Amino acid sequence: MIPSLSHRPVIAVVGSGAVGCFYGGRLAQAGHEVHFLLRSDYDAIRQNGLHIRSFEGDFTLSPDVLHIYRDPHDMPKADLVLVTLKATGNAAFESLIRPLMGTDTTLLTLQNGLGNEDELARLFGPDPVTGGMAFVCINRTAPGMIHHIDHGFLKIGEFAARGVPARGKTQRMERIADLFRSAKIECHVLENLRRGRWEKLIWNIPFNGLGAVLDLATDRLIGFEAGIALITRLMQEVKAIAAADGIDLPGDIIAQQIRHTRTMGAYQSSMQIDRQQGREMEIEAILGEPLRLAAEAGVATPTLHALYDMGRLIGSGKFEARNSNDE
Amino acid sequence: MIPSLSHRPVIAVVGSGAVGCFYGGRLAQAGHEVHFLLRSDYDAIRQNGLHIRSFEGDFTLSPDVLHIYRDPHDMPKADLVLVTLKATGNAAFESLIRPLMGTDTTLLTLQNGLGNEDELARLFGPDPVTGGMAFVCINRTAPGMIHHIDHGFLKIGEFAARGVPARGKTQRMERIADLFRSAKIECHVLENLRRGRWEKLIWNIPFNGLGAVLDLATDRLIGFEAGIALITRLMQEVKAIAAADGIDLPGDIIAQQIRHTRTMGAYQSSMQIDRQQGREMEIEAILGEPLRLAAEAGVATPTLHALYDMGRLIGSGKFEARNSNDE
Repeated sequence: MIPSLSHRPVIAVVGSGAVGCFYGGRLAQAGHEVHFLLRSDYDAIRQNGLHIRSFEGDFTLSPDVLHIYRDPHDMPKADLVLVTLKATGNAAFESLIRPLMGTDTTLLTLQNGLGNEDELARLFGPDPVTGGMAFVCINRTAPGMIHHIDHGFLKIGEFAARGVPARGKTQRMERIADLFRSAKIECHVLENLRRGRWEKLIWNIPFNGLGAVLDLATDRLIGFEAGIALITRLMQEVKAIAAADGIDLPGDIIAQQIRHTRTMGAYQSSMQIDRQQGREMEIEAILGEPLRLAAEAGVATPTLHALYDMGRLIGSGKFEARNSNDE
Repeated sequence: MIPSLSHRPVIAVVGSGAVGCFYGGRLAQAGHEVHFLLRSDYDAIRQNGLHIRSFEGDFTLSPDVLHIYRDPHDMPKADLVLVTLKATGNAAFESLIRPLMGTDTTLLTLQNGLGNEDELARLFGPDPVTGGMAFVCINRTAPGMIHHIDHGFLKIGEFAARGVPARGKTQRMERIADLFRSAKIECHVLENLRRGRWEKLIWNIPFNGLGAVLDLATDRLIGFEAGIALITRLMQEVKAIAAADGIDLPGDIIAQQIRHTRTMGAYQSSMQIDRQQGREMEIEAILGEPLRLAAEAGVATPTLHALYDMGRLIGSGKFEARNSNDE
């Protein structure tokens, strides 16, 4: 059980990219005890601290108030671990997270896509596992420098394995939500995390996938009939996979999502930016896992299949060597 | 009927890009009477003639031996019209070709994709219409300058409308083939042009389509399992459309095509080059027409559908204005 706020829970952040640094930084700024596991940004943050430029007000955490580490074995056992690794780095879960597991540790993965909670549950059992979605526009502009552009709210919930009933809004989730709220982060607790995942995936699959494969921002993707037609077919396939996964998405969700996207302007998805910057893309978590689930359930998803293969193809060659050495 | 070679047929070339200038140039070089309808290259060729750099030997046709025109009304009636417009310019067939039609004119379209013969037959009746495929690596490097990199053979045949039996190897086709052979161009007469079109389309659809959409050359497209899987699914769909169009392609054609592609190295398709140079792509002729045929025949082609929409999407916005003014 997460201690109540008055007991100062020990929080660990594993994967200190933009999302980890931002949410961990907000919690630290609010006076919570946050321990950051860093890799590439360790030296910069050791030297200069963590700088967050935010539309809600900039703030800096100086090196002397930060707990930062290179090695998880140097870190204390945690009450709450925020898992904010890129989903391409999940092979490192065991080595990075095991050392932080106490007798009653909760894991909260804020990673993109499908399958992250399942992988954590496979390694650490289902009980510690919770997950959430970060609705935030954020970039790491340089080591230790985060630019928080817009939004920031979280939706979090208990993990339940496929076919297992959702665990609803537990006291544990409410405590975690309170923790974030105490750090000026809006946080909703979900009855059903899986539903939340699909509600986000129905947007992420077409817009991250097509954005990366075609290198087009959202306004171009929905600006022409060809794009709307393609996105609609993709969303219909995602809706069918969600249904096979026990989640009935609302009948008008596709129109809703497209309407919502019109408000976003020329938004570049994280996967498009990864592609542009030659970084590994979260193809498997966002496209591959839903496709495998469809195949298991016998749901026809030829458009998603094409998108998945194209995504792998544009990433191919570039990351093969890097994959094997990653983390 | 095309006159026999001894009667010096009048040949017109409509659409003097790389293909038109090359085949027309070869025929003129061999002493045939060739009349070129030019647009953007008129001034350069008037000034400096037509320069063909070829792996088979360079040659130049000086302005004083060339018959060139800006307006088809200034041209003589033709025995044979080579139609080598880009397939995106087919709306100009009526205005460019009608003035060349005599009492017994043969039209030979060497354009890419499906539907070009049908459109000519709609305007001029089926009898004058023949078609062919140019297997040639060729570029227009500057106005009046053609680079003939490799190959060059033609496969030509009589047009037969959908559902009409093929007309076989007619004397007319043999005479046209002789004409090309007299100009050092290898030329095969096909029993069934439609079969020839599908044998070429099964390659063009995946490699032009994916090449353009993903901006990848053939070696990247077949260099990874994801690409082979995607290309195989596309080719299976094309095979099914061909079957619905009365053409049974050989069982091993997919493996054959992929093997053949391995010999090509890093080949950039014409559509990929069009994309790179910001020129309009032949999306409709190569992807759209087969897709419409599939829809009519009730053949499921979701991968082709995705590719078609992606092709339209990457071309969208750029060419809308140009389309309406084109030709």
